[in-house]
Amino acid sequence: MKKFVSIKDIPSLPEWVEEAINIKKQPLAHKELGANKTIGLLFFNPSLRTRLSTQKAARNLGMDVIVMNFNKEGWALEFEDGSVMNASTSEHIKEGAAVISQYCDIVAVRAFASLEDKEKDEAETVLNSFVKHASVPVVNMESATAHPLQALADAITLEEQKKVQKPKVVLSWAPHPKALPHAVANSFVEMIKMTEAEFVITHPQGYELDPEITQGVDIEYDQEKAFENADFIYTKNWSSYTDYGKILNTEANWTVTGEKMKLTNQGAFMHCLPVRRNVVVSDEVLDEGNSLVLEQANNRTYAAQLVLKKILENADS
Amino acid sequence: MKKFVSIKDIPSLPEWVEEAINIKKQPLAHKELGANKTIGLLFFNPSLRTRLSTQKAARNLGMDVIVMNFNKEGWALEFEDGSVMNASTSEHIKEGAAVISQYCDIVAVRAFASLEDKEKDEAETVLNSFVKHASVPVVNMESATAHPLQALADAITLEEQKKVQKPKVVLSWAPHPKALPHAVANSFVEMIKMTEAEFVITHPQGYELDPEITQGVDIEYDQEKAFENADFIYTKNWSSYTDYGKILNTEANWTVTGEKMKLTNQGAFMHCLPVRRNVVVSDEVLDEGNSLVLEQANNRTYAAQLVLKKILENADS
Amino acid sequence: MKKFVSIKDIPSLPEWVEEAINIKKQPLAHKELGANKTIGLLFFNPSLRTRLSTQKAARNLGMDVIVMNFNKEGWALEFEDGSVMNASTSEHIKEGAAVISQYCDIVAVRAFASLEDKEKDEAETVLNSFVKHASVPVVNMESATAHPLQALADAITLEEQKKVQKPKVVLSWAPHPKALPHAVANSFVEMIKMTEAEFVITHPQGYELDPEITQGVDIEYDQEKAFENADFIYTKNWSSYTDYGKILNTEANWTVTGEKMKLTNQGAFMHCLPVRRNVVVSDEVLDEGNSLVLEQANNRTYAAQLVLKKILENADS
Repeated sequence: MKKFVSIKDIPSLPEWVEEAINIKKQPLAHKELGANKTIGLLFFNPSLRTRLSTQKAARNLGMDVIVMNFNKEGWALEFEDGSVMNASTSEHIKEGAAVISQYCDIVAVRAFASLEDKEKDEAETVLNSFVKHASVPVVNMESATAHPLQALADAITLEEQKKVQKPKVVLSWAPHPKALPHAVANSFVEMIKMTEAEFVITHPQGYELDPEITQGVDIEYDQEKAFENADFIYTKNWSSYTDYGKILNTEANWTVTGEKMKLTNQGAFMHCLPVRRNVVVSDEVLDEGNSLVLEQANNRTYAAQLVLKKILENADS
Repeated sequence: MKKFVSIKDIPSLPEWVEEAINIKKQPLAHKELGANKTIGLLFFNPSLRTRLSTQKAARNLGMDVIVMNFNKEGWALEFEDGSVMNASTSEHIKEGAAVISQYCDIVAVRAFASLEDKEKDEAETVLNSFVKHASVPVVNMESATAHPLQALADAITLEEQKKVQKPKVVLSWAPHPKALPHAVANSFVEMIKMTEAEFVITHPQGYELDPEITQGVDIEYDQEKAFENADFIYTKNWSSYTDYGKILNTEANWTVTGEKMKLTNQGAFMHCLPVRRNVVVSDEVLDEGNSLVLEQANNRTYAAQLVLKKILENADS
Repeated sequence: MKKFVSIKDIPSLPEWVEEAINIKKQPLAHKELGANKTIGLLFFNPSLRTRLSTQKAARNLGMDVIVMNFNKEGWALEFEDGSVMNASTSEHIKEGAAVISQYCDIVAVRAFASLEDKEKDEAETVLNSFVKHASVPVVNMESATAHPLQALADAITLEEQKKVQKPKVVLSWAPHPKALPHAVANSFVEMIKMTEAEFVITHPQGYELDPEITQGVDIEYDQEKAFENADFIYTKNWSSYTDYGKILNTEANWTVTGEKMKLTNQGAFMHCLPVRRNVVVSDEVLDEGNSLVLEQANNRTYAAQLVLKKILENADS
């Protein structure tokens, strides 16, 4: 595997999920694989789960880890070709990515959406520039439009937790005080489409995701109706895609509550975290309900470890 | 040992001090104990000695180390139960601590006093929330009211340096331009009460520490009188406890000087560092006197290493 | 070797370059040398190449690495002797350096020039204070007036790339929107003077470097004339030394272009990076020309590794 930037980079999701579950049983079984190899974790944005789980995954494989908070510990990078760099950017990605590739065997990058310039976000300027100019494999630790490590962890969790072969999975929008990117929702949709699940997305009107991604997926604007008989409620806020990056303030009563969860088939609650309690979801769902959020977070380690393992194995072959 | 949040968590201080001194002689003797274990160091406040010595201690035990400057590299945590999280906090400690526990075998936390809300500080909101919601042992790297790793290092230093069985130890307040917490002083008092030392606290009126902590301890408002025949002068500034977090500006001439040290029994000067020269203590005491500040800092490694060793041993049993 | 603060600390540059080239062939050959040793990387300024390559070098030697962004993760240090520390500095370098020396076997420091106080910059206050007060070897990761790790990497690159025994090397000033230090240029000049190269410095009038450093070196104010028959064009901006730290704005047309490179003897372009494209050098030189910037950056690892190896070997003897 030469890069992991999208959930679509996974050749066979069921096989990968099975392998990840095996890694989880014996996380140190491939401790020699990454010996004397270095992963560089480059953060352009804050991170908790990704920061820690990816380090843990790398160490489980025996890799050395270098963490760099790019904008704070380094300087601003230039991503535009041909620009006259007499302003705020100090180094072009052409040099930056190529240089880092000489010190690291794998480069992992977190670079969120701006939510201001749709075209630029969809072009995945930062991530794709690293892919283009790095000479080593690049891993997406959440980019403008995708969070495939999260989606892979979610696939593992769904496989571990499902009680029927073809569960009903609902992706439900929920309110949030800040405008959030579409990355987690996008990758979740793409991942679910690779599974056998019955899948429904529910959100207020105006919060439609990128139609290219949701093509063929049922959309139900009535949240309660969508919840009926669901086995899994995957909740996430995102800002408007059409009115790009905006909060529409149309629906406040979309918080996932214990009452709504009762409509499901004793369904489980999922969220990628961090989650705003009593805004996105009420306390009772997390504290007393059938919540999988910790299992999801735990599986981040094994999702990352599988991705790194695949890359290291390829490097050896 | 399931946690180390207070010096009172030490079952027998003399035995621990003896063991720490043995670790200091052979710091790599237990290099296998922490193999494939990870400690997460979570900083909500700046740190030099604690940051470096705890990393060194963990590596001496073969542990992997993940450092996270929480507020800068992550986001603000919510600590209040039941709050509607529609403001500045992005993740509840319930999720935060539980998630981190899945990536780390031990979690160490530094979270200073606010010095604004006495009740909140005394409740040790941040530290205790980690203890409550983490599923792995928690180590206190200085909390609102306690700094037990420092106190343990001080106990080691006192044991190494004392010339008589029952030395006279004086804890002396000293001036400082900023309002400082009571954590170091509190833990030092609690530690000394576990030893055989003759103990006196001296400070200007109005700087009384928490009476629950100083119960039974002699307080002498005349600094020079307190210094007479002392074997150790442990100096530290703290803000008012009664007039919580305030600098009272009543006494400027409390700087520890060479002249004052002459009143002692050729006593040694101690301070946890960082120390403001010529404010807390004059240059001559540090440069020409009988100063133990570097020995204290050095013992931070072995104090931390002993605590981590106790936790790791317990985890194995 | 007890310290590496200047390129002049290298006893024999040709021998060191040869050894570095051997290390590059087998970077893991001395993996045991640094076992159970710790290097502390202390950054007072941003860093990318130095940050990553020095970590990589240390790990290649089996060392543990502790990184600290001093001002952000710790507090401000005091460097003046005898000062009354009642203002913004919280810890004196006397304690700071001595304490860090107890946790680390080698201390590496990055502390740029202020470009405001020439005397202070030339005194190398930060670096020299660490050398004076640390009890372990100190490595210069770029100080106010010197960047010897870069110069050593450049010496390696020149040796690898030169086609004649005595190449013509030109150090050319280039424009930059920000006032930059003289450190890289200084160390490059000092390094080249240790080699057999024919050496010319070219810059606009007013940008003369420290005359003590350039003593005996040809200076040519006509950039194009200087480029004639050159084998290597080493480009770097620096602010005025005479009118200390100022940008004189006298010459905008000093950008290194493909056209100018044609004047050389099919010469190679060198720069320490980060480089501002189309200000310092035009795109075509980096993208289509004979550019060595990535080779230079790659050699940073082996320059650092050689320095650390020399220090570790000395520590053992």
